[in-house]
Amino acid sequence: MCGIFGVIGHKQAGQLTYLGLYALQHRGEESAGIVVFKGKDISSHKGMGLVSEVFDEKIINSFSGDIALGHVRYSTTGSSIEKNIQPFVVYFRKGYTAIAHNGNITNIAYLHSRIEKEGSIFQTTMDSEIIAHLIAREKGKDMEKNVIQAFSQLEGAYSVIMVMNNTLIGARDPYGFRPLCIGRLDGAYILSSETCALDLIGADYLREVEPGELVFITNRGINSFRAFVKSRRAFCIFEYIYFARPDSNVFGKSVYLIRKNLGEKLAKEASLNDCDFIMPIPDSGNYAALGFSQASGLKLELGIVRNHYIGRTFIQPMPWVRDFKVRIKLNPIRDLIKGKKVGIIEDSIVRGTTSKARVSTLRKMGAKEIHMRVSSPPIKYPCFFGIDFPQQNELIASSKNLDEIQKFIGLNSLYYLSKDGMLEATSLPKDNFCTACFDNNYPIKPKKFYKGILER
Amino acid sequence: MCGIFGVIGHKQAGQLTYLGLYALQHRGEESAGIVVFKGKDISSHKGMGLVSEVFDEKIINSFSGDIALGHVRYSTTGSSIEKNIQPFVVYFRKGYTAIAHNGNITNIAYLHSRIEKEGSIFQTTMDSEIIAHLIAREKGKDMEKNVIQAFSQLEGAYSVIMVMNNTLIGARDPYGFRPLCIGRLDGAYILSSETCALDLIGADYLREVEPGELVFITNRGINSFRAFVKSRRAFCIFEYIYFARPDSNVFGKSVYLIRKNLGEKLAKEASLNDCDFIMPIPDSGNYAALGFSQASGLKLELGIVRNHYIGRTFIQPMPWVRDFKVRIKLNPIRDLIKGKKVGIIEDSIVRGTTSKARVSTLRKMGAKEIHMRVSSPPIKYPCFFGIDFPQQNELIASSKNLDEIQKFIGLNSLYYLSKDGMLEATSLPKDNFCTACFDNNYPIKPKKFYKGILER
Amino acid sequence: MCGIFGVIGHKQAGQLTYLGLYALQHRGEESAGIVVFKGKDISSHKGMGLVSEVFDEKIINSFSGDIALGHVRYSTTGSSIEKNIQPFVVYFRKGYTAIAHNGNITNIAYLHSRIEKEGSIFQTTMDSEIIAHLIAREKGKDMEKNVIQAFSQLEGAYSVIMVMNNTLIGARDPYGFRPLCIGRLDGAYILSSETCALDLIGADYLREVEPGELVFITNRGINSFRAFVKSRRAFCIFEYIYFARPDSNVFGKSVYLIRKNLGEKLAKEASLNDCDFIMPIPDSGNYAALGFSQASGLKLELGIVRNHYIGRTFIQPMPWVRDFKVRIKLNPIRDLIKGKKVGIIEDSIVRGTTSKARVSTLRKMGAKEIHMRVSSPPIKYPCFFGIDFPQQNELIASSKNLDEIQKFIGLNSLYYLSKDGMLEATSLPKDNFCTACFDNNYPIKPKKFYKGILER
Amino acid sequence: MCGIFGVIGHKQAGQLTYLGLYALQHRGEESAGIVVFKGKDISSHKGMGLVSEVFDEKIINSFSGDIALGHVRYSTTGSSIEKNIQPFVVYFRKGYTAIAHNGNITNIAYLHSRIEKEGSIFQTTMDSEIIAHLIAREKGKDMEKNVIQAFSQLEGAYSVIMVMNNTLIGARDPYGFRPLCIGRLDGAYILSSETCALDLIGADYLREVEPGELVFITNRGINSFRAFVKSRRAFCIFEYIYFARPDSNVFGKSVYLIRKNLGEKLAKEASLNDCDFIMPIPDSGNYAALGFSQASGLKLELGIVRNHYIGRTFIQPMPWVRDFKVRIKLNPIRDLIKGKKVGIIEDSIVRGTTSKARVSTLRKMGAKEIHMRVSSPPIKYPCFFGIDFPQQNELIASSKNLDEIQKFIGLNSLYYLSKDGMLEATSLPKDNFCTACFDNNYPIKPKKFYKGILER
Repeated sequence: MCGIFGVIGHKQAGQLTYLGLYALQHRGEESAGIVVFKGKDISSHKGMGLVSEVFDEKIINSFSGDIALGHVRYSTTGSSIEKNIQPFVVYFRKGYTAIAHNGNITNIAYLHSRIEKEGSIFQTTMDSEIIAHLIAREKGKDMEKNVIQAFSQLEGAYSVIMVMNNTLIGARDPYGFRPLCIGRLDGAYILSSETCALDLIGADYLREVEPGELVFITNRGINSFRAFVKSRRAFCIFEYIYFARPDSNVFGKSVYLIRKNLGEKLAKEASLNDCDFIMPIPDSGNYAALGFSQASGLKLELGIVRNHYIGRTFIQPMPWVRDFKVRIKLNPIRDLIKGKKVGIIEDSIVRGTTSKARVSTLRKMGAKEIHMRVSSPPIKYPCFFGIDFPQQNELIASSKNLDEIQKFIGLNSLYYLSKDGMLEATSLPKDNFCTACFDNNYPIKPKKFYKGILER
Repeated sequence: MCGIFGVIGHKQAGQLTYLGLYALQHRGEESAGIVVFKGKDISSHKGMGLVSEVFDEKIINSFSGDIALGHVRYSTTGSSIEKNIQPFVVYFRKGYTAIAHNGNITNIAYLHSRIEKEGSIFQTTMDSEIIAHLIAREKGKDMEKNVIQAFSQLEGAYSVIMVMNNTLIGARDPYGFRPLCIGRLDGAYILSSETCALDLIGADYLREVEPGELVFITNRGINSFRAFVKSRRAFCIFEYIYFARPDSNVFGKSVYLIRKNLGEKLAKEASLNDCDFIMPIPDSGNYAALGFSQASGLKLELGIVRNHYIGRTFIQPMPWVRDFKVRIKLNPIRDLIKGKKVGIIEDSIVRGTTSKARVSTLRKMGAKEIHMRVSSPPIKYPCFFGIDFPQQNELIASSKNLDEIQKFIGLNSLYYLSKDGMLEATSLPKDNFCTACFDNNYPIKPKKFYKGILER
Repeated sequence: MCGIFGVIGHKQAGQLTYLGLYALQHRGEESAGIVVFKGKDISSHKGMGLVSEVFDEKIINSFSGDIALGHVRYSTTGSSIEKNIQPFVVYFRKGYTAIAHNGNITNIAYLHSRIEKEGSIFQTTMDSEIIAHLIAREKGKDMEKNVIQAFSQLEGAYSVIMVMNNTLIGARDPYGFRPLCIGRLDGAYILSSETCALDLIGADYLREVEPGELVFITNRGINSFRAFVKSRRAFCIFEYIYFARPDSNVFGKSVYLIRKNLGEKLAKEASLNDCDFIMPIPDSGNYAALGFSQASGLKLELGIVRNHYIGRTFIQPMPWVRDFKVRIKLNPIRDLIKGKKVGIIEDSIVRGTTSKARVSTLRKMGAKEIHMRVSSPPIKYPCFFGIDFPQQNELIASSKNLDEIQKFIGLNSLYYLSKDGMLEATSLPKDNFCTACFDNNYPIKPKKFYKGILER
Repeated sequence: MCGIFGVIGHKQAGQLTYLGLYALQHRGEESAGIVVFKGKDISSHKGMGLVSEVFDEKIINSFSGDIALGHVRYSTTGSSIEKNIQPFVVYFRKGYTAIAHNGNITNIAYLHSRIEKEGSIFQTTMDSEIIAHLIAREKGKDMEKNVIQAFSQLEGAYSVIMVMNNTLIGARDPYGFRPLCIGRLDGAYILSSETCALDLIGADYLREVEPGELVFITNRGINSFRAFVKSRRAFCIFEYIYFARPDSNVFGKSVYLIRKNLGEKLAKEASLNDCDFIMPIPDSGNYAALGFSQASGLKLELGIVRNHYIGRTFIQPMPWVRDFKVRIKLNPIRDLIKGKKVGIIEDSIVRGTTSKARVSTLRKMGAKEIHMRVSSPPIKYPCFFGIDFPQQNELIASSKNLDEIQKFIGLNSLYYLSKDGMLEATSLPKDNFCTACFDNNYPIKPKKFYKGILER
């Protein structure tokens, strides 16, 4: 999972990109990078860590140029090395290009071995390097045709922002797995993963980059191409459930309102009338809890307090403090919970271990009964399109049934939202979404050799 | 404002103190320090910054000893220098002592000049150094008497934790301005500003250190003294309104429940029945908004989203982005607010400038009407007992009346909770509180020379 | 200018490489990098700064593998960016390879544009990336043939160490511009720019890599190839005059002894019998001064003291202290110099400004006469083979004659060693050396388009 | 051992002090501090590490004020903590004062316990804090009398620079153990441990602060007092042998010329006529070797090369590289030494282990015979006046006789300069020096309780 952001036509393109990445920080906390173009000069700064750690005032002020491109990267596996920080910058016969990518190219092993055979060298294992190779190999004189030709060889999930020949390019795969939107600020154009980044810089939301669309933006305006074979839609439903920021619009809809809808559907499917009150696991469960409370009339409490000082630096384990990792983040209100029947609203359950620890803490604080309602179905299958779930055997719902999960976590009752309920909450056509992590129905079948190349 | 924490009788006293400071981080973000005692050996680590920045794994693991003392310090004025980081450690004829202080000694100028005349040297301007001088000057052989004698010369607000002669000492001024509580964990004793720090380490809450009480804790137990002239109570009401963590008990009561009560009282005094919904300024307004909604039946929304990545490093101004400072922290949900009559619940208004900027953002997002309800009375007077309000002329309510404030912020209506309503919400006797910042009624009259010494 | 070092067949290959780079630090102070191979796993660490800054104990201890390669890079121009830190690591169809290069490929512009046309992408402007591309393009199955084929396309000065397929490869251009030697330690083989790095790790000196030789070293031994068209020798004479460490053997000869010989020749060509004593500019002039004194019988003094604390961090100018930059490094002995006729021995004069400032300081300290003798001829022409002289118009001898230089520096007399004297001092055949910086006689004619690509 | 430096009457007093400390860096590498006074404002910056590490451009530029004081501190024992970094700054009834101290107060235990009994608190174990206490205790109105009265209670070795009431104060104990000189620059006055610091800033040398003299320098000039009981002189002879910089004048004489004299005396006492050449252990043996060569006519070589990149960061041991610690610093010229009879000139022998390792390296490089001449007598006794020798039992000459030392180091012959020869080389009266480390003749008898307080 990653966040991408680009600007063309603004004197402070680099500074805006810094702010854009700041707003998209939740999409990738591992590393960040910004590339700024001023005519033929490019300057680039990248580093491991949060946006606020990678860039300081001196660096931000040094950015000069009217085109800029930025990227934040999610911590995936152990292979997180400095080389892999995006945007990826190369030059070839047509000049400099910079590429920022969000998603997962599924035919990368095939592309890799084909290009290797032709005698190319690779410095990284990133999808962006493959995209650069494909573009460099196109011999035509028409940049737009070359880029389209390169992208038409890709299979999988991608939202890409590129800079080439003073043009800001946005591309989204035909399925539309990952979001990408267009904004406007004082004559400048913006491309961004989510609208919350437009809000922060005071830009207006224009529209989505459509699935299968390529936009070439220069100072003269937008040129749009729809060159790919048509395909079904496959928006990632997890963007609504958990991943995107609640104050963003994604796939054209307010994430906040859809999360509330998920809570309302959940209340209708499985109410909690015997509970003294319901409360969310903050902050991701807040909005479903609000919807649940409004639909059911059940009293809402914000009975678990989140510590705002949790940062990346605080990672040392304290094995001699029980439930330490859970308590350091969230602390319940003892006087509220003691002797009460408590309903908990959670957005999703992955491994189940965190929920188990939280429930144990609530029990120790004297909760009489604990019931959980989850605003999404059980996650059973891995994601090949950009969400970093753990291995399938670590997904609790892939090996345990409802009763077993309830028992494992230590609940008095447990209910997951139905798939239909979830899809209805979006008020978009049901077949517009990828729901593979719930139902094993992958829009693109991952190739067998896929894993091999990943491990490389 | 500061947070203090001490442990005696636990093998990992230093590590527990680290966690304690972590939980008390909201009481002081400027600097942090820990001192650990192992028999006659002491080790100390201090630094500017957050607890997670000052201490790393290596330092934490190096702490060895069964008594420890920690302090987090609030950023007050420009005089924030490394020398002033507490705990303050000195040695004198009775051995090493370490002092951590929360509050403000009001007769410090008198004490200073008296001790100076006797030929002493000073390295800092901290209250803790004066306390050390006073104790060193007592010639008696009975440590407890010496300490009591020293404290009896102090006037003002103080909660102090000290270590001396293998004894953990807690002291609270006779008015009880600042909180201080006692906890227990596996035979060890804990002293802490708030109970949230006890929760984090899994300790049990025992009781408050009473106003005017001195406790001397050794491995054999607690020795309590009440040696000071009796006095009225003057608990700081602002601990309940804003300062303490909602998951703490302070002055013996749940902060969360009192904040909800403040919201309920507010709903009764000034409802918002014409609004489409109410929403808090997060996170400090969350609990009053919850109480307001439950008391009034008005729909609650969590319509402003807080960015969790705001850290200390992100301080560079971006003058070319309007309302930047406000937007970077909090972003409203556009699709929720557009065309609506919105009620906002805020815990307090200090300068009014932040509220003004937030209201302006909501207007731009299309709010039709904006009404504000504040869960405390107008702040008009400075605090001399430890809260770091700005200069009196910067307090908006000290120079503007209700109408002027409403107009300045740009609201359709504004109402502050009454003083009586506020005090009733605590369900403690009304005369137990210091309310000087609201009504100019200072429990201790600050001396004229007070300011002089402060500027030193 | 750079320093390169490689090891194969030693359990602590990475640690030895660290020490090797430490000994070669004088060949490049800007950046350093080490790559360690353990079977198919590679680990790499690089950074800007001195070897002691880039690597710490933790990193050094983490190196695990029996093949390693290291590089230190000289500060050349403003284009010093992190990306350009060597060794350069890529993978292609034959696996991982790492390349460390010392020298200057002169037909790089041609090679670049040829490879670009074939659709390749570039991430750096380094010669090493071109070498990697050339090797990847060779389709044969025989690694040695492929590598030879790739190197045979290069023109210019290069000493290269590479790792590929568990083989440590050393290559030296047919002219032999830059040194490269082979060492042995406990069954392991070492490649190094200079022998001082062998001394530090206790390795035995085996022999030079010959001009035009390629060596492929595996655990089974050395395979040597001499595949290039034969060519004249062109050893860089400046390695003897200034660049190499005095305790190294370079091109098979002791640098210390040759520097003493240069001083002897100089004494014979232009003695200083009227001087009270001679003294070197330390430390580079020390050995010529010693030779000069022994040959002439003139008294030697070490009358200028070098400050050993000068490091990279101390770069802030102090415009209000006269001759600050010169004085901070070297301070003369006032009581020795006052009223004396002083002879100074210097290894070379580049811009002349430093000499001018030093002479001015000596005059202020009371020197009666100051005579200078230089142990190399006047430098008049730029180097295209790896030495980083300033622009030609900044070389004082390219625009001023002897009298003018003497006057500019403020000397009573000045003499440069003759070219013949210099060459005789080496006791190697005179036509074995490149002397282009003195006589404009370039062994390879630089192409016209050369500068264009450099500026890129 | 420490270096101290102060300026009064110069607009860039802080910047000059930075340069002064830079020149005095050899007197203390552990920590550095500068305090600048601008009327009543003081600013201070201190830190662990070299001067170039502690101060950066921003800090240096921020210094504003016309009086400044600086200190560099030597690494002594494990008790090196940040608190102990000098200058020591306190305020008391007469305002701010700052103290920088070089030496050792021998009656500190007595003073400590006396002041403790009077009820004072201590933050450090430094001599400077005691001096501050003594001054604060003086009740008179005349600053000069108070300071003199305070200093008259001290016993031991001290050169002190202080700032108080816009006055720069210099004090030197009646024995004159440590140097302190006065300089002049553009109307400003300078106090400095050595003259090399005057040279660096272009200041003129005025005179020594005399033993037993106190100077009070204001903008109106110098006021000198000689208030102490007269005493014998006891200049530290080790300043000449090893400690001071060769380009300094110390105790009124050129260190360089005295070191050469030591070599000349040594040549007369024990020549090396059978050797092929002599060479120094650089750099400390350079000047004695020069004098030895000139007096004896024996050929001088600079056959051991010092690595200039050795810094504080490079401290990790490499147990698997033999003689690593010695080789990383100094590498001999193999082609010079092989098969030769070598005479080595060393300034002193402390433990003997380093010499042993160096001799072993020379043997491995093929030296036929190795003879050593030392330009000082055997060190047998500890120093209580500021030189940080190891424990007495680690001094090789305190437990071994000449033959045993020669055998231990592995030499063909060994000779130490006689005490008379050493003293004659200074051309100052013999009884002006402390020679306790050679002959156990301590000018002040250390008290029994001395060690106790040190360990505290």
